[in-house]
Amino acid sequence: MDERAGELRDRDGRDRSGRDADGREHGERLSALDAVFLSMEAPDRHMHGGSLMVFDRPTGPDGPEDFDHTRFLRLVRARLSLVPRYRQKLAAPPLPVGNPVWVDDEHFDLSYHVRHAALPRPGSIQQLSEYCARILSRPLDRDRPLWELYVIEGLEDGRFAVLNKTHHAMVDGRSGIDLTSVLLDTEPDVAPQLPSPSPWSPAPTPGAGQLLRDAARDALRNPAALVTAGGRLVAAPTTTLRRAMSLGRVAASMTRATLVHGAPRSLLNQPPGPHRRFAIQRIALEEAKRVKDTFGTTVNDVVLAAVADATGRYLRGHGAVTDRLWLRAMVPVSTRAGSEQHALGNRVVSVFVDLPVFEQDPIERLRICHEAMAGVRSTHHAVGADFLIGLGEFAPPTLHAMAARAAVHSRLFNFLVTNVPGPQQPVYCLGARLIGSFPFTPLTATQSYAVGLTSTDGWLNFGFTADYDTLPDIERVTGYLRDAFDDLCRCADAVTATARDR
Amino acid sequence: MDERAGELRDRDGRDRSGRDADGREHGERLSALDAVFLSMEAPDRHMHGGSLMVFDRPTGPDGPEDFDHTRFLRLVRARLSLVPRYRQKLAAPPLPVGNPVWVDDEHFDLSYHVRHAALPRPGSIQQLSEYCARILSRPLDRDRPLWELYVIEGLEDGRFAVLNKTHHAMVDGRSGIDLTSVLLDTEPDVAPQLPSPSPWSPAPTPGAGQLLRDAARDALRNPAALVTAGGRLVAAPTTTLRRAMSLGRVAASMTRATLVHGAPRSLLNQPPGPHRRFAIQRIALEEAKRVKDTFGTTVNDVVLAAVADATGRYLRGHGAVTDRLWLRAMVPVSTRAGSEQHALGNRVVSVFVDLPVFEQDPIERLRICHEAMAGVRSTHHAVGADFLIGLGEFAPPTLHAMAARAAVHSRLFNFLVTNVPGPQQPVYCLGARLIGSFPFTPLTATQSYAVGLTSTDGWLNFGFTADYDTLPDIERVTGYLRDAFDDLCRCADAVTATARDR
Repeated sequence: MDERAGELRDRDGRDRSGRDADGREHGERLSALDAVFLSMEAPDRHMHGGSLMVFDRPTGPDGPEDFDHTRFLRLVRARLSLVPRYRQKLAAPPLPVGNPVWVDDEHFDLSYHVRHAALPRPGSIQQLSEYCARILSRPLDRDRPLWELYVIEGLEDGRFAVLNKTHHAMVDGRSGIDLTSVLLDTEPDVAPQLPSPSPWSPAPTPGAGQLLRDAARDALRNPAALVTAGGRLVAAPTTTLRRAMSLGRVAASMTRATLVHGAPRSLLNQPPGPHRRFAIQRIALEEAKRVKDTFGTTVNDVVLAAVADATGRYLRGHGAVTDRLWLRAMVPVSTRAGSEQHALGNRVVSVFVDLPVFEQDPIERLRICHEAMAGVRSTHHAVGADFLIGLGEFAPPTLHAMAARAAVHSRLFNFLVTNVPGPQQPVYCLGARLIGSFPFTPLTATQSYAVGLTSTDGWLNFGFTADYDTLPDIERVTGYLRDAFDDLCRCADAVTATARDR
Repeated sequence: MDERAGELRDRDGRDRSGRDADGREHGERLSALDAVFLSMEAPDRHMHGGSLMVFDRPTGPDGPEDFDHTRFLRLVRARLSLVPRYRQKLAAPPLPVGNPVWVDDEHFDLSYHVRHAALPRPGSIQQLSEYCARILSRPLDRDRPLWELYVIEGLEDGRFAVLNKTHHAMVDGRSGIDLTSVLLDTEPDVAPQLPSPSPWSPAPTPGAGQLLRDAARDALRNPAALVTAGGRLVAAPTTTLRRAMSLGRVAASMTRATLVHGAPRSLLNQPPGPHRRFAIQRIALEEAKRVKDTFGTTVNDVVLAAVADATGRYLRGHGAVTDRLWLRAMVPVSTRAGSEQHALGNRVVSVFVDLPVFEQDPIERLRICHEAMAGVRSTHHAVGADFLIGLGEFAPPTLHAMAARAAVHSRLFNFLVTNVPGPQQPVYCLGARLIGSFPFTPLTATQSYAVGLTSTDGWLNFGFTADYDTLPDIERVTGYLRDAFDDLCRCADAVTATARDR
């Protein structure tokens, strides 16, 4: 935000983007792309994403203690001023002359957004996933700030979880932080020093007349904004989206010319209904590194090979024939090309990678994934091994959202795999250590399956989002993923042992 | 259903109402009124209702035990065949030539409908109410059978709760039973003898052509059905509803001519948003009876006087002036007029009662309520003291739904008070005794407040449904209701003591 500090301000003391003298973003207008995310939303096509963070039992000065929801609310209240968008809602001009703007929610009600919940006994991962899936299946209320946070008690071993659900129109990649990342600390004992929340006085909600005048003014300054307004936007979202996305430098790497005319049909590509399933799995990063070191690949190659295997096993379990089946994954990567000053949206490039689902030899499958990704890297100046790593100033949910946003416009692939770095050291919330952060992703109109991965301190945290009816037993994929890593590790260990014996 | 047994069946073996040889109601067409409930539904106007049942900790052969969700699922599965509608969904003809029909859901998935949930510690009534309110705020999925059941663990003292949420289009008053009532037993130890579920084979879902042919056939048999179909229904729901309701013998008792032109405006009559609040309170029936016996009124008069008082205190607490304020309550009552053979819809009459909210003298308030209700009884042949009592063959949720359905069409009152008898002896679910059953009611377009009451074995169970934003502290009404009964009991005791002393 500093780069804008010297800009002219209008007579309300706001600069051109709507930030007032305090840097608040009241009145900022949605970009064309953000507005498209709103207009594309439907009961069976949610435009929210987020993550499920699982925490160990909190430890206080006197040993393990129970999670304290009142303290958690105090923490959120204290840090909310770091993320002004979380107290803002959308206000649309009364006529279709511009996109909606973000305005302070005068009736902001924290207890609406932060919800206290619990699992029934025994508090298993399966129950946690089911609970999350139900929440993912519901749209956010457009008349309030577009986020919800669920604090979930009652996990086995005194653990608790925090599910954050945020609309993609809110995650524009211009700001590096999101609410969940400001709730985490690198020290377990930072919590007692909680500052008291800074006072917040919402800017008054503009009336219909003001909204209209502002929209007209913005339209004069930037006539292109008119094109995306109101009815026309809804009538032709794809065109608008294509144009908007092209600003974001979305590229399509066609690694197999045979597939250029569309992705193969599969069980995974049924149109989803309104309900979701969710499943999670955690794999030690050390396993992926052992495989990568043995075979000279990257961690990302190993991940893709394992995902291809797990997906193939799942499909075969449903009677699908996977002989000669390649499934095209969309894998957003980051590039260093272009100015570092660019917003995040300009640094995320989506590439297509064809995964050899038919291939049941773990080493051969890994080799194919490695070659495919090597081709991608050389073509697109992608960062390389760890992909979205190197964008450390951005919170994982932001990166996942940017990746998912890139996916929404295309039918030319079978499923999305987003791989995003999280904190690579221990982090805590009110003294409780983060065990894992599992992403969930919205499904597009032709996809019933998506894979997200957030790496945190020594772990790969996978989240599988699926349509409720099409993939009713999605949790089986998490077992297959475990099997896939076991196979890869066994191969690596065998190679290492053979090398040592020689 | 027996009365139809001798009717002609078509070549599919179904009788005219669509019941097949086994009495199943596959293919039955929605009535005009049921269709109206569908078409009137909007995000801020839900058309579902139901009840929250709270149970004591279950007792097994070896003493208190934890609630067993797997056994509960088995119970539901075993008894589902008693309520065929619960495995049916709506199918609409592809052209607007008739209302939707109920068809067996070939993909019926019990785990979608019965959901296992829990409260965070300590499991207070406040937390339970909040949890329920969130569920009430969400629409049911129109593509599935129109009900959900939540089994909620983690209440204080090992108690648990069952929340049932059912669409009003499903509760047509023709069948006396609903799912929750078939889950209750009069003996605590009936559960071990659970029968194994009878096999269920869904009738095949009719295709678009079949739906259209059936609709055309039904339209020829009953041309009036065409009037309510498709677009015209949506365009003029009020007219259709009025006509449909007139079949149900809805009568309006204007007890005060001054208010004939509409109900007074109040905080309670803001248009509701999409979110709800819920609050419950339990009062011993003995208290109401003591007051009724002392002053020679009915239990219902006492209930109305207490509700008037609690509502008045709440309004004054929000700075409203209640001097000379009468609030018009709609109170559905039952009549014995007409044939007993009639469907329930024809036996529920809605009357208006003006409640003296200004009156702060408990006895005078009670006297006014008593007179108002006496007038209603003499005009409408209402059953009398206990109102919907005497319709014992109908489950409480059905009665509440019929009452709420009657309310939906009118703006001429301030709020709905439904008073419905539940089981008047101890009842159990899997060995756990029912403590109370608290109804919730949908809000109409001009009402942010509704009161429901189910009497069970020795208790009056009140449920207050409210709009989330308009009445954010609705739980205060439950305290005021407690105060109102305290005042009435004090007055009764004083009168009794004085009489004795003389």
